Formats: sequence, structure tokens, C-alpha cells
Amino acid sequence: MSNPSLLILPGDGIGQEVMAEVRRVIEWFGAKRDMQFDVSEDLVGGAAYDKHGVPLHDDTMAKAQEVDAVLLGAVGGPAYDDLDFSVKPERGLLRLRKEMDLFANLRPAQCFDALADFSSLKKELVAGLDIMIVRELTSGVYFGEPRGIHMEDNMRVGVNTQRYTEVEIERGARAAFELAMKRDKKLCSMEKANVMESGILWRDVVTEVHADYPEVELSHMYADNGAMQLVRAPKQFDVIYTDNLFGDILSDCAAMLTGSLGMLPSASLGSPMENGRPKAMYEPVHGSAPDITGQGKANPIACILSFAMALRYSFDEGAEATRLEAAIEKVLADGVRTGDLLSDENSTGVSTSGMTDAILAAL
Amino acid sequence: MSNPSLLILPGDGIGQEVMAEVRRVIEWFGAKRDMQFDVSEDLVGGAAYDKHGVPLHDDTMAKAQEVDAVLLGAVGGPAYDDLDFSVKPERGLLRLRKEMDLFANLRPAQCFDALADFSSLKKELVAGLDIMIVRELTSGVYFGEPRGIHMEDNMRVGVNTQRYTEVEIERGARAAFELAMKRDKKLCSMEKANVMESGILWRDVVTEVHADYPEVELSHMYADNGAMQLVRAPKQFDVIYTDNLFGDILSDCAAMLTGSLGMLPSASLGSPMENGRPKAMYEPVHGSAPDITGQGKANPIACILSFAMALRYSFDEGAEATRLEAAIEKVLADGVRTGDLLSDENSTGVSTSGMTDAILAAL
Ligand SMILES: CC(C)[C@H](C(=O)O)[C@@H](O)C(=O)O
Ligand SMILES: CC(C)[C@H](C(=O)O)[C@@H](O)C(=O)O
Repeated sequence: MSNPSLLILPGDGIGQEVMAEVRRVIEWFGAKRDMQFDVSEDLVGGAAYDKHGVPLHDDTMAKAQEVDAVLLGAVGGPAYDDLDFSVKPERGLLRLRKEMDLFANLRPAQCFDALADFSSLKKELVAGLDIMIVRELTSGVYFGEPRGIHMEDNMRVGVNTQRYTEVEIERGARAAFELAMKRDKKLCSMEKANVMESGILWRDVVTEVHADYPEVELSHMYADNGAMQLVRAPKQFDVIYTDNLFGDILSDCAAMLTGSLGMLPSASLGSPMENGRPKAMYEPVHGSAPDITGQGKANPIACILSFAMALRYSFDEGAEATRLEAAIEKVLADGVRTGDLLSDENSTGVSTSGMTDAILAAL
Repeated sequence: MSNPSLLILPGDGIGQEVMAEVRRVIEWFGAKRDMQFDVSEDLVGGAAYDKHGVPLHDDTMAKAQEVDAVLLGAVGGPAYDDLDFSVKPERGLLRLRKEMDLFANLRPAQCFDALADFSSLKKELVAGLDIMIVRELTSGVYFGEPRGIHMEDNMRVGVNTQRYTEVEIERGARAAFELAMKRDKKLCSMEKANVMESGILWRDVVTEVHADYPEVELSHMYADNGAMQLVRAPKQFDVIYTDNLFGDILSDCAAMLTGSLGMLPSASLGSPMENGRPKAMYEPVHGSAPDITGQGKANPIACILSFAMALRYSFDEGAEATRLEAAIEKVLADGVRTGDLLSDENSTGVSTSGMTDAILAAL
């Protein structure tokens, strides 16, 4: 059987730096665990625009469809702010999500014990926090038609469409219920069913899917209240299921509770391919961080944890994933810190590669 | 000249209890400041549905259009959860906002020194916090057409439409810039221009309006980053301007930063009427709180502070508003607390009316 294949798309800014570290981790697994991957690399985002005039070349898209998992760094940066909407770096990311049909975006918000002090929230509210947000990723207002800016009575009008079919809501709900079954069996669904009909349908469909998972305790919450409860008492949640736009905001809010964005991975999963593996893309939650690009300051942990998610969800190597996560916890407990994890702005901590050195040593 | 007129719509749950306290404050201003108001009262929300089968009777709507200011308590409650969407209590509130054309929703997120310990956030992050969120309130996905649930290929499909005209964006932006001019001259506009064309138009129009307010420092932020920054370092903000749906979520998130929802007022303002006063409705940010309804536990401060906003924005009585706010600060500094402001669940604190007693005594 051929080796599992990985397509690395470092993208822009620190995406390139953290992805270089992930390559070292992949090499470690090859050398020490005899896990061989066929690794290829290509351009996405601003980097692809610079070369091809588009944020994702068709050839890259085709490659992404063929591999077992895509690892993505980050896209965008100030150099591309004034580009036309249709060629913005973000379009590359959205095209990958849409054409690979990666409907279930898993965003864990976990607070590492060693970093609980680093959260904005009081320590007792976040210590031990372990939430999994499942965000629907291929529909909603991100992709709905009609959309655009047009003239009406001599006025510019901006339109986007929030649109969900029951099938779209259902398949994401199933992914969320499945995760809840493996965790604390609690699922909270968030929408604005009090003001949006698409939210009513969301609530109804999630309730229908619940019939297949009677062991899971299901609750519903309006998304505004959800944002509030995430700040007030985040530990009340286990799995949260919400739509593309609410998920964008709520997962960033939840991410921030844990103290550092530089810590948080994500997995975007689609339907099973012929080999049984799901279509999959893994990316850190953080952006391209132009302010620290090229300085060796980026925290590679979010991207390395994204690779751990790939081990778990694409390659059925849950035990190895747990081992990698444990090594990261150990390194943090030992006090190893990149700059973003230091409250004192003057202390420097370790470099991007220094963090990886420590993690590999702990493995 | 006739007295200024107020329409009180207590609504449901604790709305009725806190509005009774506001009446006492209004009477105090009559007796001690010789400020006479013509006060009438009517039904909204579930209370109106119970009597009329609709959440807002046409006669009530007509009255609301005529008065100088509407004071609203809260709408909704579990008894109404299974009602048809078109007669839900929330519809009453939305109809008032839409037909009165109350486009600028002002939501201060202020942290009272005496309560800084009560926030989920570390004290140093919120002490002295003073943000004003301006939320566009009459458009966007709350009101856009087409909307609804329909069948397509034997599947249910839920649709809502995010729609903004440049005029809608502009008038709210002007309100936000005007407020910024009276405050720290900083405005942050939030949208998702990286994925939504309506967000691009939003950003463009706000930038155009900025030309009339060159003294104000304008910044733009994606709404997901906004949620994150609100949790990370809320004091970086002065005035925030955002759309109806983002405003709903971000203002609740900001509200929670201050520790207690029971503290936060809001003003919804429209265009000037013939007498020069803006169309206006004032309401606490909190909901109807069915869990504590009828127990004398509700905190009346949010509703009393909403009346203070009425003094300032409808009746040009800024000095009296400040005096009322100062009385509330003093009472809090003296340690007077309703139950929601106590961390120890077993201590009882003062009752709803006890809090008002203390405020009136301090005035
Ligand atoms: C970069 C942007 C298009 C993206 C989104 O809005 O989905 C990002 O915020 C995310 O959450 O992955
Ligand atoms: C009750 C509900 C319709 C309302 C809204 O979504 O606007 C509320 O959440 C608010 O923020 O005033």
C-alpha cells in the first residue's frame, strides 16, 4: 500500500514559519515511528496570488482533492488588503473548504493547565477548560446566493444570503453528536431562531437528529447568549454546534478564553473518500500575523497540534496524537515559552524552532 | 407647552418588576425636580399576545409613534417558546424598532469600579472600562427579504437575507462618529469584509463618512477578531460601530465583560421628530429572566440607567442623567447589592425595591 499523502500549503506570513516546524515533526514520526508520508507542498493565499494572480491555482485545488490530508498555514496580510474581493487571499481558503466539501470544522478550545494564568479570564473559570466547537463550514452566509453590491435607486446596496438546507444542517449535527458521544455527551446548539427562519430550521433539524443520539443531552441557546455564556462560565459547555458565521465569531471568542491563539488547532472534515479516510484539511486558528513575520517569534504549537488532529482524524493514530499532545503539555509545564506566552514583554522566550526542539525532545 | 410623554411597556417577566421601580424614579424627578412627564402604559410581547393574540397591538404601535420616548422592559419567556414565529414576543420588539425606524442602538459597556471584581475577566482588564457600542438596529439579516423556510427538491431550506443600503450604513455611522466626538474620538467599525460583500460596502461607507469627522481615529476590524479583542483587551475600544447581527452578539459579549447584565441600559434612537426630539426607545439589555420572575430579586439598575439615557438623549437633561448615574455608583460603592451582584449564592442582598430605595436616598 502506498504511503498516506499530505499536501502542505504554508500560505502567508508566519504560516510559512510554523509549517517548517511541522515538517520537522513529520520527519520525526518517519524516523522514530516509521510512519512515512508522501509530502508535497504548494502555494495558497497571497503567495499564490503573487505567482499566479489567483489565491488558489486549479492545479493546487486538484492536488488537494487527491491527497489524504491538507495542512494549511495561514492566508492574507496587509500587502493584499486592497486586492479585489474575488482574488483576496481568503478566497483560496474558502475555495478549498467549499470544493473539498469540508462541512465539519472542529475547533477545540482547551486551556492547558500551565497557561491558565495567561487567560483574560479568572483562572478558576478556565482551568481545565475543554470545549469542542463544531462549526458548519461549507454553507450559510459565506456561500449563499444572491450576493454582491449592486445599484438600486441610485444607491449602493450590499447583499449576502444566509441559506441552509436540512441536509447541510443534519450532516454537521451528526458529526457534532458523534463527537459528543466520545466526550461528555453534552451538545449545545446555537442559532438565532428568535429572529431568523434559518435558525428555526437549524433548531428543528438538530432536534430531529437528536433522536438517533438519545444518550446525548441536547440544549439550544441563542448565539448572543452563547457569546455571553462563553465569557461568563465556559466550563458549562462540552460540544457546541453552530453555523458558519456564528461559528467564526464564537470560536474566536472561545479561543481567546484559553489565553493564546498560538495554541489552537482546527480540523475541517468532509465525507469519506474511497480509502475510507475523510476529506480533510488541518489549520491553526491563528492568522498570518504580519506583525511578527520573519522574526522567528511565531508559536508553532497550534500548527503542530493541527498535525496531531490529522493523526487522530485522518490516520487513525489517536494514540500517537495523544502522545504528541502530551509532549506539548510537558514542555509547557516545564516553562518553555514562545513570546506570545510570556506576560512580560521584555523576556524573549524560545524561538519558533526552539519550541519544536523542546517538543521533539519531550516526545 | 405640554409635558414630555413617556410610554411604558413593561413586557414580560422581570420587565414588569423593574419597570415599577422606574416609575418610582420618574415620580421622584416629578416631586424633587419638578420634571413632569405624561406617563402611559401598555402591553408588549407575551403579555400582549395573551390579551390580543399578537405581540404588539396596532393601537400600541400608534401610541409609540406619538410619544417622546418609549421605555421597554423585556419580552419573552418559556410560556411562549412554542408559538408560531410570526407571533413570538420578540416580534413586538422588532416591530417597534422597525416602524419607529430606530436605527442607532447605543449600548454602553461600562464597568463600575465597585463591581470590577465581579467580572469574569481579571480586574485590571476591566476596571474603568467604558465602551459605547453603536449597533445598526433596523436592517440587516433581521429584516432582509427574501426570508423563510421553503421546500426545494423535497428538502426544507431556511433562508435569510443580509441587506444594507449605503444610506442605512451611513446614518448609523454618523451617530457613531458624533458619539466618538464627545468621547475619546476613537471609532472601530466591525464587519466581515473578507467574506461578505455587504461588509465591503459597510467598510467603504464608514470610510467615506469619516471624511466629515477627520478628528476621529477610525479603525476597521473583522467581527471575529472583534470578539476576540473584546475578551483580550477591551479597554482598547472607545466607540464600536457594527451591524444588527454582529451588534447583537458583540454587545452581549461586551456586556458580560462588565460582570452583570443587570447593570446595562440601552437607547435606540431614530430621526428627529417635529419637536426636535429623536424617536426613541430605552430598554435594559437583560431579558425577561423567567427563572427569577416574581421573587423581588431582579436588579432594577439596568432599567433605571435606561431612564437616565432617556434624560440625556430625549430630554436634554444630561446633568440630571449624570446625577442619577452618580447616585447608582455611590450606592454600589456603599456595598448595596441585589442577588445578581453577589458572588456568594447564600447571601441575599437587597430586593428590587430595596435597591431603588437606596438609589433614591442617594439622589
Ligand atoms: C480568514 C477567514 C476567511 C476565516 C473565516 O472567516 O472563516 C477565518 O476567520 C477563520 O475562522 O478560519
Ligand atoms: C430579543 C431579541 C429579538 C433581541 C435581538 O436579537 O435583537 C435581543 O437579543 C437584543 O439584543 O435586544
